[in-house]
Amino acid sequence: MSTSLADLITAMGQKARASSRLCASAGPAVKEKALLRLASLLEENEAAILAANATDTAAAEERGITGPRLARLRLTPGIIGEMAAACRELAAMPDIVGAQDSQWRRPNGLLVGRMRVPLGVIAMIFESRPNVTVDSAILCLKAGNAVILRGGSEALHSNLYLMGLIRTALKETGLPEDAAQLVPVADREAVPLLCGLDAFIDVMIPRGGEALIQRVSSLATMPVLKHDKGVCHAYIHKGADGPAAIPALVNAKAQRPATCNALECLLVHQEEAAAFLPLLGAAMREAGVSLRACSAALPLLLPSGVEALPAAETDFGKEFGDLILAVKIVSSLDEAMEHIARFGSRHTEVIFTGDLAAANRFTREVDASMVGVNVSTRFNDGGQLGLGAEIGISTSKLHAYGPMGLRELTTTKFVVLGNGQARA
Amino acid sequence: MSTSLADLITAMGQKARASSRLCASAGPAVKEKALLRLASLLEENEAAILAANATDTAAAEERGITGPRLARLRLTPGIIGEMAAACRELAAMPDIVGAQDSQWRRPNGLLVGRMRVPLGVIAMIFESRPNVTVDSAILCLKAGNAVILRGGSEALHSNLYLMGLIRTALKETGLPEDAAQLVPVADREAVPLLCGLDAFIDVMIPRGGEALIQRVSSLATMPVLKHDKGVCHAYIHKGADGPAAIPALVNAKAQRPATCNALECLLVHQEEAAAFLPLLGAAMREAGVSLRACSAALPLLLPSGVEALPAAETDFGKEFGDLILAVKIVSSLDEAMEHIARFGSRHTEVIFTGDLAAANRFTREVDASMVGVNVSTRFNDGGQLGLGAEIGISTSKLHAYGPMGLRELTTTKFVVLGNGQARA
Repeated sequence: MSTSLADLITAMGQKARASSRLCASAGPAVKEKALLRLASLLEENEAAILAANATDTAAAEERGITGPRLARLRLTPGIIGEMAAACRELAAMPDIVGAQDSQWRRPNGLLVGRMRVPLGVIAMIFESRPNVTVDSAILCLKAGNAVILRGGSEALHSNLYLMGLIRTALKETGLPEDAAQLVPVADREAVPLLCGLDAFIDVMIPRGGEALIQRVSSLATMPVLKHDKGVCHAYIHKGADGPAAIPALVNAKAQRPATCNALECLLVHQEEAAAFLPLLGAAMREAGVSLRACSAALPLLLPSGVEALPAAETDFGKEFGDLILAVKIVSSLDEAMEHIARFGSRHTEVIFTGDLAAANRFTREVDASMVGVNVSTRFNDGGQLGLGAEIGISTSKLHAYGPMGLRELTTTKFVVLGNGQARA
Repeated sequence: MSTSLADLITAMGQKARASSRLCASAGPAVKEKALLRLASLLEENEAAILAANATDTAAAEERGITGPRLARLRLTPGIIGEMAAACRELAAMPDIVGAQDSQWRRPNGLLVGRMRVPLGVIAMIFESRPNVTVDSAILCLKAGNAVILRGGSEALHSNLYLMGLIRTALKETGLPEDAAQLVPVADREAVPLLCGLDAFIDVMIPRGGEALIQRVSSLATMPVLKHDKGVCHAYIHKGADGPAAIPALVNAKAQRPATCNALECLLVHQEEAAAFLPLLGAAMREAGVSLRACSAALPLLLPSGVEALPAAETDFGKEFGDLILAVKIVSSLDEAMEHIARFGSRHTEVIFTGDLAAANRFTREVDASMVGVNVSTRFNDGGQLGLGAEIGISTSKLHAYGPMGLRELTTTKFVVLGNGQARA
């Protein structure tokens, strides 16, 4: 079994590599046609998609999976409609493959430019909802790459059915169907096997929980773009407009607390604490948020009636992933930035201030894929930032730092046009 | 010994990480001042640099090192002058750290931009001439990074002396001297120790022979930007102006045959072979180049009097690094591109043609960090392409593909300015 799995995974890599050269040279029109065909196929096969998904959810329920984990697994006509809409939106977006932002002339007459080209073969190992299968495959394909996906075992039937539709759309429009492949078995051994395929896979993207990220990072022999956890902070600076900050903070914590750009820790300047924390407590109580507060903050929060416990040492730097927020009073901007450097995960960090110098220092000096001033952390998202669709949020600093859209799924090569030049 | 070496390397990593935050926030003026000071120090200490270098060259001669390897090790007043000039040129270049190419407004009023920021701590393991110590350190520093260098053991005295000057320049201008460090021992075990320091080093750049690249790639726990070998091809297409191509081809092969952008294999369309190969043979004979030709090419080359042997199977895909060139006749552009895909190293590939469609297909479809039309392969170089100084030529596709200048030693983070926005 283990040998045949190894053979299967190796064959997938070979087929992806072979397909990737055809994908790279495919023109905009054929890719657009494939995406539009996929949109139709998703709509036409709604009932069959829901049936495949029902197999997964029934098996999950049988294994005792409930609550958000079960909800995440479930596809609905609404989600299927969103997938089809994503295909059409992406089809309408400009094709960046082969484009050059600029060309420049050298003194010897050479014309030099950087051409945007696909990365080649992208592998993604993810644990998310089944619609990620479609959303990530279409981005990779539009950027001219071949893609190998390995989704969560509990979504295998849904993912297989969706991948079947993707491959049908490719085949029907004359693109190689092996440009999109899904590992068709739930065997955990598929992960190390994929991670060893550096001969065929150009970049590995793990997207999911910390254990998955760590496992893939340590095993992968090809470059890895981590989509790691977010331990996101907000800092209320001295003189900030506290009431104006409240809606963004509640949004950051409570809109979708399980996402990586949700707020985990609020830092408050000591001069604002007495006025601001009662407001915060009331707003968070209403949003159903439980607080973990430092000893100085706790007495200022409790009168609001919010649930608040003394913060343990481990509450700082923790990704709660839930309606829980750590709160700490700091004495200065420097202390806030020190705290963030120590406990943050370089994901999303925001300051609330009306002070230009403080805003400039914070945005300049804090090392995170997104730094913000007077905004919710939830804006660290490709769509929200105006990049279009994204495949995830990279916490690696190389190549892509932050949301990865189409551009981040490509690289550039130099193109040099001459008329016989030799180097002096 | 091994424990104390491990302690030493770990301490270097910690000091680099601590310094990197100060480097990242250092303004343009102080960095400019440090670079200008270093230029003066290099000139003022010419005699001492040459003395340190004489220790290295004497030891090398004693160990029987001769020829190009010895020549590569030797510093001269001319090379020292070039290092000082490089410092002044870099000082005069714009500081890109903190810059944003553009900002865009979102429908909800958010102002979004991507700010160029340092990578953090860069480690480079290299085998090259000692002036690389200065050339690479100053690039890393100008880009706001801290840097750890590990040079070849035969250049240790030279490198240590040069690093001493760099650190003096940093210190005298108020920058942290630990922003630039050199591993001060020749022990080979330093390499695996550095490769394990992912807690302190953001990116590892191996630059040297294939064995070094492989060793570092397999050991490194942080992202690696390979500066790998170049197996560069030129292809003479049907109808190309053969005589016009000759100077660029001789330049590509013979100007500096040991460099990674030197030509290793020439492919010639069968319809051009009879007219072109005699010209090639004569020109290469004059340049002292020995050929390794396919059986069809050999009889067309020999009459010129050039040294030419039948090509062995292993001569294709080989980096000769010497005045040796493989020659092969192909039947079509497709066969040429197939050969390049199979035997090339994604470094530099050029076509000679007057045919627009062939030029477009070649530049679009060939996967290499530089693709060229009617030019010498030797132009794949940061200075020649107009990027300014370079730290090397990346053959990794992620983050940087081709010459790495200042921009490639940075990344971008998103900066979002708002007035209390929450995500809808």
